[in-house]
Formats: sequence, C-alpha cells, structure tokens
Amino acid sequence: MKNDVAERCDVVVVGGSAAGVTAAITVRRHYPSKKVLLIRKEEKVPIPCGIPYIFGTLGSPEKNLIPDALLETNKIDFRIATVTSIDRAAKTVSTTAGSVGYDRLILATGSSPIRPRIPGVDLEGVFPIEKDVACLHQLQDDLGHAKHIVIIGGGFIGIEFADEINKAGDKKITVVEMAPRCLSLAYDDEFCVDMEELLKSRGIEIRTSSLVEEIEGNGRVRCVRLRGGSKIDADLVILGIGSKANVELGRDAGLRVGDSGGLSVDRTMRTSDPSIFACGDCTEKISFFGGRPSYLKLASIAELEARIAGANLFGIRRESDGTLGVWCTAVGPLALGTAGLTEVAAKELGYQVVCASVEGPNRHPGTMPGAAPTKLKLVFEVHSNVLIGGQIRGGDSVGEMTNIVAACIQKRMTVEDIATFQMGTHPALTASPIAYHIVNAAEIASQSLICAEHART
Amino acid sequence: MKNDVAERCDVVVVGGSAAGVTAAITVRRHYPSKKVLLIRKEEKVPIPCGIPYIFGTLGSPEKNLIPDALLETNKIDFRIATVTSIDRAAKTVSTTAGSVGYDRLILATGSSPIRPRIPGVDLEGVFPIEKDVACLHQLQDDLGHAKHIVIIGGGFIGIEFADEINKAGDKKITVVEMAPRCLSLAYDDEFCVDMEELLKSRGIEIRTSSLVEEIEGNGRVRCVRLRGGSKIDADLVILGIGSKANVELGRDAGLRVGDSGGLSVDRTMRTSDPSIFACGDCTEKISFFGGRPSYLKLASIAELEARIAGANLFGIRRESDGTLGVWCTAVGPLALGTAGLTEVAAKELGYQVVCASVEGPNRHPGTMPGAAPTKLKLVFEVHSNVLIGGQIRGGDSVGEMTNIVAACIQKRMTVEDIATFQMGTHPALTASPIAYHIVNAAEIASQSLICAEHART
Repeated sequence: MKNDVAERCDVVVVGGSAAGVTAAITVRRHYPSKKVLLIRKEEKVPIPCGIPYIFGTLGSPEKNLIPDALLETNKIDFRIATVTSIDRAAKTVSTTAGSVGYDRLILATGSSPIRPRIPGVDLEGVFPIEKDVACLHQLQDDLGHAKHIVIIGGGFIGIEFADEINKAGDKKITVVEMAPRCLSLAYDDEFCVDMEELLKSRGIEIRTSSLVEEIEGNGRVRCVRLRGGSKIDADLVILGIGSKANVELGRDAGLRVGDSGGLSVDRTMRTSDPSIFACGDCTEKISFFGGRPSYLKLASIAELEARIAGANLFGIRRESDGTLGVWCTAVGPLALGTAGLTEVAAKELGYQVVCASVEGPNRHPGTMPGAAPTKLKLVFEVHSNVLIGGQIRGGDSVGEMTNIVAACIQKRMTVEDIATFQMGTHPALTASPIAYHIVNAAEIASQSLICAEHART
Repeated sequence: MKNDVAERCDVVVVGGSAAGVTAAITVRRHYPSKKVLLIRKEEKVPIPCGIPYIFGTLGSPEKNLIPDALLETNKIDFRIATVTSIDRAAKTVSTTAGSVGYDRLILATGSSPIRPRIPGVDLEGVFPIEKDVACLHQLQDDLGHAKHIVIIGGGFIGIEFADEINKAGDKKITVVEMAPRCLSLAYDDEFCVDMEELLKSRGIEIRTSSLVEEIEGNGRVRCVRLRGGSKIDADLVILGIGSKANVELGRDAGLRVGDSGGLSVDRTMRTSDPSIFACGDCTEKISFFGGRPSYLKLASIAELEARIAGANLFGIRRESDGTLGVWCTAVGPLALGTAGLTEVAAKELGYQVVCASVEGPNRHPGTMPGAAPTKLKLVFEVHSNVLIGGQIRGGDSVGEMTNIVAACIQKRMTVEDIATFQMGTHPALTASPIAYHIVNAAEIASQSLICAEHART
C-alpha cells in the first residue's frame, strides 16, 4: 500500500514539545539534507517547566510558549494534526490530516498527568495540569473565582503552583503531601524543611503525611477529605502528583513497553523497531545509578534523549549513560537544586556514603549586592570516593551551581578531582575562592572518606 | 644553633592572603594534630578580588577584609610580623617578632604591583594597587579630591576600578591600554568590544593601542603623555598592569626561581627544598595547555595551589595539572567569564580549533525576571574534539556558567560529552533546556568538527 501515501519524508517526528522540537533540530544539524516533518496535535505548545509561572509571574499561557520560530529557523516543516496509527511494515503514519511515509520515525509523544483513583476526582473544579493552552486558560479562569485552593502533591509542580497562585493575595492555599516532607524524592530533609518554612511564611498551608481519601462535592468540588477524617475547604483542586508516559500510539503499533510504563528503548534511544526511535517523557528511563528503571520525567532528560535519538537516526554515535536526575525549583528568593542521589536515596540503593555540607554567601565579601546564603551538600560513595549526588539551597546561583555538580557526577569525578577543581571566582558573581562551596565540601568529605576507609580496613 | 629557637611548629605558613589562609586551613584539615602557625605582615588583609569594589559598591577597605575568624575557627595560630630570612639548615625562620622553627614551611608571599619604567611613575598621585589597607585608604582619600583620573592598563583590574570610581559621578576617567582591545589576553575581540562599549556608555573614555610614554607633573602628577604626543589631564593615575611574584625571601634562602620570575615548584607545589612548599602568586605557574610557564596570577589559582601544598606536606597525594585560567569580571549589569584558551590564544599556541557561539536569555521564557541576554563561545581542538576554552558574556549567571565550562575543560570533555551533558534547568534560574548554551554550542561545534575532519582527510 506504500503507493497510496501521497507524501514521504526522511524523518517524521511525532510531538512538538521539548523532546520533539529538540529531536527535529538535532536531525537537522546532523543530517542537513534530510527532509524532516514534525507533527504535533497542539496549535500552540506551552513551555512545560514554565506552566506554574503563567498564574503569577507571566500572566497568561500565551506568554509561555515554545516559539515556532525555533522550527522555522531550523528549516523544519511542521503540521498540526493528531497521529492516529503507525503502519510499521509500510513505514507510514496516519494522521487526522492524511498519511505520511517515513524512513525514520521519532516518537516524542510526552506524558499526561496522573488522575489518581480518588472518589470525586472527576468533579468540576479538579484540575490535572495539562500541557495545553485551552486547559490552562480554563484553569486560569477558574482560579479567578476560587478562594480555597487545595493542591494535591508537594513535589515541585505542587509547590511552584502554590506560590504562584498565592501571588494573587486573596486565596487560601493548602498543599497536601502524602510523604512526611514536600520534595522528599529529590532532597534530604534539611532542604525540604527550608522550602516548607518559606511557603508557610508566605501564608501557604502545608499538610504533609496526609493522604487524600475523597474529593467531596456536588457537581463541583467543595472540600478535600483526608485519611483520619479532617476536611479542607476547596473550591478548586489541582493535581500535582506526577504523569504517565503516552505510549498508546507506539504500543498499538506493537512496540515494546517497559515495566515502568514507558516505551522500551535501548541506550541509543531505539525502540524495538530499528526504524523507530523515541525520546522524552514517553520512554522508559534507566537510572545512571545501578541501571534500573527510573520514574523521573524532566524536560532536561527529554532533551538529552532527543539529542541522542536525533543524532543516531542514520548511524549510531551516541549512547545514554542513564538519567542522573538534575533539576531545580524556585519560590521567591529561595531556590533548591539537586543532581544525582540524595543521602537517603543513596543509602536505600545500598551505597555506603559520606556527606559534607558547606554554608556561606554566594558573593564575596558577603555584603556585595545579590549575596544570598547558600548551602551545598555533596554525597560521595565511600569505596570509590566518587561523587554521586549534590543538593544546593540558595538564590539565583543555584541553577548553574547544580549543573557544575551534575558535570562532576556525570564524569564520575572523585573527591580529589573536586577538591582540586579550578574554579573562577568574582566578588559580584560567586563565593570567595577560600569558601567556594563545591571545593570546600569535597575537602571536608575527603577527611571523612579517609576515616571511613580506615574504619573499614 | 637549633637550641636557640624558643618556639618550634610543625608547620609555618608565611603569608596571610588567599593562598596562605587556604594552605593553613588545608593543613589543619589533612593533618589535624599538627601545630600550625601563620605569619603575616599585615594587621588586616584585604580580599584581593574585592579591592576595586572598595571605591564604589563597598565604601571602605574595612568592608573588604579576609576575616580572622577563618583562622580562629580552624584553630590556626597567627602572628603579625615580617619574616626576614629562612635558615634552611636549621629549619627556622627569623621574623621581626623572633625566630620560629618549622618541620615544613609554606611560602605564600604573594605578589606586588608592577611599577613600569615610565618617566614620572614616582610622582605623587601615581598609585599602584597595593593589597594593603593603609595604601588603600591613601588612595581613597586622594580619589576624593581627584577630578581627572587615568588608569594605565585595561585588564580586569583597570576596568573594574574605572567603573567603581566612576560611580562617584563627578570624575573624568580614562583607561589607557597598550593592546588594540581591553581584556584581550582573556577574551576574543567580540567580548572585549561589548565591555568597551558598556564602559563608554557610562562615560568612561577608553584609549586602546595607546602607549604611555611619560607621566608628567611637578611633584604631583599633572597629565599622562602617550606615544604620538597626545596628553590626557590627570590629577591621579592608577597602575593596573599586572604584578610580580614576591620571591625575595625564598631566593635569598637559595630556593630556585623560574624563568618567569616565580619560585620554582614541581607539580606537588614543592620548591627545590623538599621541606619547603610554595603556593599562590609567588610561584611559577605552568599552563594546563602545553605545560609552559604561565603568567596568570589569580586568587583561584592561588587557592588550588594552596590545597595541593597543604595536603602534600607530610605525604604527596595531589598534583597540579597546570593552570587553566578561569576568571570573571563584572561591570554593572555586564559580566564576562573565561576559562581556558581564547580562540586567538589557542591558534597562537598552534592548536587547530573549531569554535561555536550561542546567544539567548539565561531564563525561560526570556520574559522571566532576571533574564539577561547571554552569549557563550566554546573552543574545541579539532583532532581530539576536546574542549580547550570557553567565554561567556551575560548577567549574574556568568560566574557559575564559567565554572561549568572549567569543569568540562579540566576533565578533558569532548564535544560529544558536552552535547549529551545532563543539565538541569528552571524558568527562574537558567536558560531553557532546548536552548541551553553550553550544550547547544557543543552541538553546533560538533557539525563543524565533522567538516574539519573531512577536510583534513
């Protein structure tokens, strides 16, 4: 039936968010002569990580879009349509706007928010966070009238939403988190507490160790009932408890799906069909630490996978080492960053660790403009002395400091590598060279590692 | 004569600035039971990199001091005295406050500003930048009355001084630079131009390709005469043309001095006497690139050397790979960072290079608060594909972005390592994952490297 296909492309990319766009750009860069078509279902595509900021800082969904100019300047054709099926034998995709043939296909179909199986989750006024402009407008409209807002989930989406909505000033906001601490999957307790305290100081209520048993209401949500019976008034509920891979298109075409629910890919981002690659939230991720499936879904991981998939389409040249897990969150003046494993997670995985923390300003002297108290914690594995995790709490510097830690972990730097790291410093831009956090934490850990090694032998 | 020495210490450190303090702290960390004495000649020690900011942002030399608390909390004894000689056979130092015996000696005697051999350089009103509180007070007092200020040297000290003094608002400031561009030892032209334009827009005059032939005056400076005859009015002149290693103490004791003028040290920071180590501005540095002597003198290099020296005193465990050259400068909203080689410097050294530049905001979307246009340029070596340099122009993020580049260079990361670097991103803290500068520049360079390789074969 190949001949029925009106149009053939060298490469078809399905999905127009972070992974799809970057995959397409990467193909264009590595294979300049190939004809690339990106098909996406959305008219406009929100920047995923910017979504919470629509409701406070930015002001509207239209101020948080991935610009189509990115595709245009990279000479990538794109079409707005839904891909309904893949014919792997014929190498075609069917879409709501006709069929397209491909030589290589990249699936970047993303993820959808999880709707937990709680009674009342389908009531009016209960919002999962859809990466869709119309849905975001609907949420924004509803927020305009809401006074009592409950956010289920105290991960980064939950707390960023809480603070941004809180900027309107006339609302009572409660974050409900199942675990004993907000953000505890990515941060050790001492960092989680700082964020919880900041949110509380801004008038946001935090209910940790709290399980939602029912969302109550009659047509529209009225309150949220917790295990134990207590109720929280709510005229709007936001679900911030994670997302699941969109694998239907691939699975229906017979592609293998992994145990964690994402499309199976090897380290080159190839699916079980050698002509089909996948990247982003729709794939199963493997951890950098130990190689088991990882449930992390982050734009930065999606990008990495897109760069691997796009480069490998017509000849393998890149492999993934697995996901490190590097991300930051920010609420007002407080930013938190994490890379790799927390102390708690490392111990749970069976690593024997030594940690070191350093606290001090990110400028020198500490009276320079922009100075923010900054705390860094590094986690080293005892036998290899290799860095396996880092967390940072501070101001604006946290974002790029986290990426320095990420580079060190990714290149498996040892405590000595980091203690003798050649950093640059400047009074107006960084901590002092004497007190530079990452280097000092390594120096302190270095002593503990020697002691740990002596104790072992 | 050993018995005449009243006091013996395990370790004596000479010098109380960045290198000396860090060396002493490092000894304390690695050898907790050793008796450490730091001897310095200054009552109070300025933070070296903060000195320009005394004259604008900070307001007085006392607001820019290395706190003695650093020594106290690390249980390091210190004494204010001048070390006048070393008796290597007896292992003692003579000071203006008596003699002290040592088992290991660390020299961190720093550097002194170069006074160029220009007629008139000794006139009243001509100031080298001494790291000395009394001298800085004298300069501050004189600046209070000065209207026409000429700064000789357009390196980072020159331009930072120019802008800070300019904040007083009632002065005419001229920077005179011998080279065709300010900052050209550390930045390629396109970055230098941005800084020159910013300084000009703030009312500072920049005279490049200009050689000072004479500082004219009668007792006190009156003007600066350039080659070609033009004169610039000056009632105060600041010399910002670099510094020379303080090697007298070591040389007089028979320690070897290198061709570049610093104390010779091996990669473990040991001098030609195995009981004497040296670190900081007083040592001869070797470049990370090719291993020849390097004339760089930076606090961050001093720190690295101090950490190596301090750790190695009683057993070698660290070696220097040579100096990378990582540093930043900032004038108002504009910051520049550099790590490793510029394109020009790399070519001069004989490297065949491919460069890639990327420009975009350091937030996403670019309308987020704190967003600053940010440009990054990476320099790769063609045959190995290894990163050998990077330069950044932007806002506050420049400091830590430069250190990410530094980590990549130091671990000899290839273009592929960097293109698949797992960075974390956040709307309020970093560029978007799609446009993340370092990764994108590597991707772009990757294509050029393939072409360069094809052209070569």
